Amino acid sequence: MIVVLKPGVTEAAVEEVLVEIKKMGLTPHVLTGTERTVIAVVGDERALQKKPLAALPGVEEALPILSPYKLVSRECKPKDTVLDVGGVKIGGGKVVVMAGPCSVETEERLLSIAQDVKGAGASILRGGAFKPRTSPYAFQGLGEEGLAYLAEAKKKTGLPIITEIMDPRDMPLMMKYADIVQIGARNMQNFRLLSEVGSYSKPVMLKRGLSATIKEFLLSAEYILAAGNQQVILCERGIRTFETMTRNTLDLSAIPVIRRLSHLPIIVDPSHAVGKTDLVAPMAMAAVAAGADGLMIEVHSHPSEAYCDGEQALLPTQFKTLMTQLKRIAQACDRDM
Amino acid sequence: MIVVLKPGVTEAAVEEVLVEIKKMGLTPHVLTGTERTVIAVVGDERALQKKPLAALPGVEEALPILSPYKLVSRECKPKDTVLDVGGVKIGGGKVVVMAGPCSVETEERLLSIAQDVKGAGASILRGGAFKPRTSPYAFQGLGEEGLAYLAEAKKKTGLPIITEIMDPRDMPLMMKYADIVQIGARNMQNFRLLSEVGSYSKPVMLKRGLSATIKEFLLSAEYILAAGNQQVILCERGIRTFETMTRNTLDLSAIPVIRRLSHLPIIVDPSHAVGKTDLVAPMAMAAVAAGADGLMIEVHSHPSEAYCDGEQALLPTQFKTLMTQLKRIAQACDRDM
Amino acid sequence: MIVVLKPGVTEAAVEEVLVEIKKMGLTPHVLTGTERTVIAVVGDERALQKKPLAALPGVEEALPILSPYKLVSRECKPKDTVLDVGGVKIGGGKVVVMAGPCSVETEERLLSIAQDVKGAGASILRGGAFKPRTSPYAFQGLGEEGLAYLAEAKKKTGLPIITEIMDPRDMPLMMKYADIVQIGARNMQNFRLLSEVGSYSKPVMLKRGLSATIKEFLLSAEYILAAGNQQVILCERGIRTFETMTRNTLDLSAIPVIRRLSHLPIIVDPSHAVGKTDLVAPMAMAAVAAGADGLMIEVHSHPSEAYCDGEQALLPTQFKTLMTQLKRIAQACDRDM
Amino acid sequence: MIVVLKPGVTEAAVEEVLVEIKKMGLTPHVLTGTERTVIAVVGDERALQKKPLAALPGVEEALPILSPYKLVSRECKPKDTVLDVGGVKIGGGKVVVMAGPCSVETEERLLSIAQDVKGAGASILRGGAFKPRTSPYAFQGLGEEGLAYLAEAKKKTGLPIITEIMDPRDMPLMMKYADIVQIGARNMQNFRLLSEVGSYSKPVMLKRGLSATIKEFLLSAEYILAAGNQQVILCERGIRTFETMTRNTLDLSAIPVIRRLSHLPIIVDPSHAVGKTDLVAPMAMAAVAAGADGLMIEVHSHPSEAYCDGEQALLPTQFKTLMTQLKRIAQACDRDM
Repeated sequence: MIVVLKPGVTEAAVEEVLVEIKKMGLTPHVLTGTERTVIAVVGDERALQKKPLAALPGVEEALPILSPYKLVSRECKPKDTVLDVGGVKIGGGKVVVMAGPCSVETEERLLSIAQDVKGAGASILRGGAFKPRTSPYAFQGLGEEGLAYLAEAKKKTGLPIITEIMDPRDMPLMMKYADIVQIGARNMQNFRLLSEVGSYSKPVMLKRGLSATIKEFLLSAEYILAAGNQQVILCERGIRTFETMTRNTLDLSAIPVIRRLSHLPIIVDPSHAVGKTDLVAPMAMAAVAAGADGLMIEVHSHPSEAYCDGEQALLPTQFKTLMTQLKRIAQACDRDM
Repeated sequence: MIVVLKPGVTEAAVEEVLVEIKKMGLTPHVLTGTERTVIAVVGDERALQKKPLAALPGVEEALPILSPYKLVSRECKPKDTVLDVGGVKIGGGKVVVMAGPCSVETEERLLSIAQDVKGAGASILRGGAFKPRTSPYAFQGLGEEGLAYLAEAKKKTGLPIITEIMDPRDMPLMMKYADIVQIGARNMQNFRLLSEVGSYSKPVMLKRGLSATIKEFLLSAEYILAAGNQQVILCERGIRTFETMTRNTLDLSAIPVIRRLSHLPIIVDPSHAVGKTDLVAPMAMAAVAAGADGLMIEVHSHPSEAYCDGEQALLPTQFKTLMTQLKRIAQACDRDM
Repeated sequence: MIVVLKPGVTEAAVEEVLVEIKKMGLTPHVLTGTERTVIAVVGDERALQKKPLAALPGVEEALPILSPYKLVSRECKPKDTVLDVGGVKIGGGKVVVMAGPCSVETEERLLSIAQDVKGAGASILRGGAFKPRTSPYAFQGLGEEGLAYLAEAKKKTGLPIITEIMDPRDMPLMMKYADIVQIGARNMQNFRLLSEVGSYSKPVMLKRGLSATIKEFLLSAEYILAAGNQQVILCERGIRTFETMTRNTLDLSAIPVIRRLSHLPIIVDPSHAVGKTDLVAPMAMAAVAAGADGLMIEVHSHPSEAYCDGEQALLPTQFKTLMTQLKRIAQACDRDM
Repeated sequence: MIVVLKPGVTEAAVEEVLVEIKKMGLTPHVLTGTERTVIAVVGDERALQKKPLAALPGVEEALPILSPYKLVSRECKPKDTVLDVGGVKIGGGKVVVMAGPCSVETEERLLSIAQDVKGAGASILRGGAFKPRTSPYAFQGLGEEGLAYLAEAKKKTGLPIITEIMDPRDMPLMMKYADIVQIGARNMQNFRLLSEVGSYSKPVMLKRGLSATIKEFLLSAEYILAAGNQQVILCERGIRTFETMTRNTLDLSAIPVIRRLSHLPIIVDPSHAVGKTDLVAPMAMAAVAAGADGLMIEVHSHPSEAYCDGEQALLPTQFKTLMTQLKRIAQACDRDM
């Protein structure tokens, strides 16, 4: 940590900072510059997370040098984490596609879509039974009934399923039905939910929050790993910006940034990021070219009858065409799909 | 709702849209312009929240005209909502100040701060027992022990207490200890928590999410009202922008905007918005001038020893000076404080 | 245009709006809904750009239906615009690569880089002689001397050159030296510069402003076309968001959005967007997969000696490797490069 | 400057960094931490603005400690700058109000508004003759004709005038007509315009760009001071965020931040920030309470006939009421108005 002192700071104030640093078992080095004095702190600065030096009167700013997360970092574990979800490997270079409807609606429709996406090459089935909706008057999901339909579709197609959890109290249900538990963007900093999910042995996909920095995203993943669960997949799904032509702005540069910082697999959800059918395919293709470990794509056989997000769903035929295209790009990048 | 059709749309596609609109009991009016055809929909467009017309092939965009929330709106209830929290009125023009430490640390320190803020004119005591922290390694709060300290401070000072809830399972604890339950910015779209809190009869303060639009903020409040709880206070606490000199950007224009749209009281938390002690006072003063129904301010007797957010806490003496200043501004605006 | 009236609007206020609409030669249709009255305006609503209806007392909001730009739109010219810059075609599906140093430094160094990028397959040479720098104390470019070096490098390599203009008074210099005149992100809404450049017959590359919406970006291009110059290339180079791990956030979804809205070629500058060498390649690859008509990439033989932006420049060898990779992706997308 | 080296950096790479630092006449101090090595650089780090260390292979990040601006800083000039514009003092604690129409339209209308705002207590007249408009089809201003009307209004009311410059070539016109030259938000980083205006002896008001950080804002002001012109007023006018209920988000916390960092006066333009008449007054009041040195407010006698921004203009009577209110708040803050 580098502690920048205020201009014209008194000796007593400097002394106070030095005392605090030493109290935490760290070693301070005072550097007197032409305009400012700074104190460089040597030692594990994470000790300072509990007592911010910035509150001392002589301190202008305290700049951390080390990343605040540990378990999710490449420095902690240089090798890529690869999850095995019912035989499907996630991470480590292969491109995995999760597909299905935004929300589970009827058993027949879900099954039909599941068969379509399997036929096109998807290896995991997505479908929401608990839906986080901006409005209390919008469709909230079928709940356990939806989970049962997913289980049925899994039985018939063999596809492992991923579905969203919104409430820590639903974790037992998830253990029964889900192969991957998804934490949505709006719950990325629902720390109790993170800790709860972290205390089970079940793969988790954590979506980046709408206004979360990559550092905060990794710290939320750290909550899950710190609670004991190492099976975490990260998912970039667009951040909130001033642009309104797309639902959110897909931040594909997060892929190479995260790959450098963390060993966890990072996949991309272009459907929620762009919010419009005709933008999904180019962004899915770009995500693979940028190095994503996989994609999550919404597919619906009758988008105009979808209970939720129909305007961004691909038809099964569109999805099939896209999958062919994605395979060509994966190949051009020397990657398996 | 106004449905804008794609350029060169076919008659069949127009017909399909008309059928969908009528199915929902609404009346469409087709308007053929020089470049585009639009369909104006007459009737309660909230029916369309469940089936988005934008997914129909002929539709380019569906623009809602009505606000998506109802119970929180001024149109639904023109008169200001005024809450009574242990005799303290919130809403309706008076300026209420909630103050105290970011987190509850020790019983003695809490009590001393409580007495200080009471002496300076605060009427509600704040203090966190459950702390949502970006890092799993930061201080997470004392839990029920902290709530007990708050209860003790309330007993000794008579100040009602406000404290944060992070988990729906903690609501019974809150019923026992809290006078106002706070939902933090990171949980603004934790819809299960909103519904849970909405099902009790206990005042709630809902903070605006870091990247929440005012519309989304009101929809989250709508969740609580729709669940049966009408005692809701809104709190602006800064939004996330590109500026890094302040922790967040305090959006004071949200005050007059919300006052026009909703009957709920709106208060401001300048401490979390700016994140630095010396910026708190000017922003608190500006908030009162902009018409806020109150303020929430962090006060700590020993900021450099605070377990959390010490760099933004006011000393009791600074708080006292500020209160004097705030009263003068309230008076200049013909408001009580 | 759809004019939404305020709740409880008086008949006189409605009449006032109708009069204004008719004055402009447009036809109003009044639609009385259950909660609101709206007026749909039929006719070319661009007439309303000069007199905003929103200022009338009865009006709550005026929602435009038509896009505010015309000449840049696909509706106006359905076929892709293809520029011919000294024999190099830009637009229409081929992937063009512009490369070179951020700023022109010495004649020898520029020439050496020019030969390297030509050898790797670039077809246009970039290099700044006038540099827009955030700080007045940073290197501001060599001015005409730099332009002369570019001319020399063009003579020796045959590569057409692109260079930035910052001042309308420099247009004669640009006519003498540049093959493509670049307008930088910070000048995207320097309307006088746009009009000046629009009054010459010289290809222009317009970069998207840091906080410009796609609509504003297209309107800035419209300034150039409206002034008479049809040879415009658009360039996405990242927008400003809250994320700090990258210099800006590259908005690749702008590519398919702009392709649908406009006939102008759209290229991507990943170097300025990400600001770090090791992120350039994945974003360049993603841009091609997303459908960009080309790329602008910074290459420098001695990045640590660069006068500007050395931390984002590729070494010639890195650039060569990237070009090979880009060709494979272009091929996988059935595109020429 | 603090140079953070990459994990596992080689000795040769460290040596290379040390050489570069010494080359620039600065002194490096190497600090070997438990996980990382950092080099603290003592000396005037502005020397490093020309050669970014971040481009060296061993460097992960180079964190500046000193502010990159000098002349605008409080450290350089601790006392508030106070401008004298035709007898009106700007800066140093008094609250100055500039008011008038967005654009100059007719001589009669301008004069009538000028008399109204003077009567209400404004001391400077605003009015645009050159208008930066997003669309080339919107009203672009009357040009010199408008300047002549402003001169006429000044002659009749005695009010000094402020008007916007968009093109460096117009500076001679400005010298003839304007008392304060305004540089608009969209030109905040039009560096040639800044330098041009800086080379004259004429007060300048520089507006903050829509996506400019405070640091960038101050660096743009530094361009003007560095060119020789010390008479600069800063103006906060809202930044671009995701919120759409207001035209921009007024960042009032910029006032205390800038006051601490710079000696230049800082005023606020609430009209452009909020974009709606009924939000102007609360934000103007808040700006004074937050410590602004003045306000710029749009006033129009017939907003619905305004050529530009009518929806945000106050009527003269509304302005008069606001002025009375502002005086009370200024008084409550012990400030003159």
